[in-house]
Amino acid sequence: MIVLGIDPGYALMGWGVVEENAGRMKLLGYGCVETYAGTPMQHRLRTLQLGVRDLVTIYHPDDVAFEELFFAHNVTTALMVGAARGAAIIAATEYTENLYEYTPMQIKQAVAGHGKADKRQIQQMVKLLLSMDTIPKPDDAADAIACAITHCQSGRNKEQFRMK
Amino acid sequence: MIVLGIDPGYALMGWGVVEENAGRMKLLGYGCVETYAGTPMQHRLRTLQLGVRDLVTIYHPDDVAFEELFFAHNVTTALMVGAARGAAIIAATEYTENLYEYTPMQIKQAVAGHGKADKRQIQQMVKLLLSMDTIPKPDDAADAIACAITHCQSGRNKEQFRMK
Repeated sequence: MIVLGIDPGYALMGWGVVEENAGRMKLLGYGCVETYAGTPMQHRLRTLQLGVRDLVTIYHPDDVAFEELFFAHNVTTALMVGAARGAAIIAATEYTENLYEYTPMQIKQAVAGHGKADKRQIQQMVKLLLSMDTIPKPDDAADAIACAITHCQSGRNKEQFRMK
Repeated sequence: MIVLGIDPGYALMGWGVVEENAGRMKLLGYGCVETYAGTPMQHRLRTLQLGVRDLVTIYHPDDVAFEELFFAHNVTTALMVGAARGAAIIAATEYTENLYEYTPMQIKQAVAGHGKADKRQIQQMVKLLLSMDTIPKPDDAADAIACAITHCQSGRNKEQFRMK
């Protein structure tokens, strides 16, 4: 099973692709789709949409796992991040029905074993679980990989995390 | 000039199409794209995207004018409305670069002559300006028509309202 993990964001949208086979996980790729302040909103959203479309075309994931957003600094930010998330979901759903969502807490629990792990601990666990030489950068990409790992580990319980 | 006005929303996205010719305005159509609670998020966003795509295909607008969102009841709502707005912007920008935005205040000013007009006054003015027999329903559609009227009336100043 190939999983594309996405950490939705407006300026930086992290992504990570993990292949799981009989309990063994392998990192196929990771990175960020970037958009720049000063670029008109419609072009930023289009960049995010096309970025995700490229990823599903390249990696052919079986499932796409999104990190769920629960908060934002304020309503204006939430409107922007919501739009970025909408762009990514639209691109993913053009490709597959198999979209899943995990909260930051669920991701911490799955990757580090407890829901209060800090960012550094998560990154160390991602490095360990995927036999990487260094911790993945930037943070947004590491978060997306952690989300993909979480989905790989959810196994037969995954239906409860299907996007609603 | 044909203008598609959009009032972005998640459950109800209002739209209205107004043709302006030498200062005369004519209503070509209006309505709402509806999505239903309980439907998975990706399907609701997809419905909004395809709804806007249908509208630009049917009406061939020269410009698309969005009512700008400034507030939401809370961050969760803002994330949802932001995603709906993102879906509409993506569909519009696939069709044209000519996207514009107006605040509720600018719309009230343009349609009713003052920024403190209430919903009922705006709807009466929409009816009057477009020689309609009744006020347009639902409110979301009336708001979208008012947004299209505002863009028609912005004339040579319209570049300052281009989406940023």
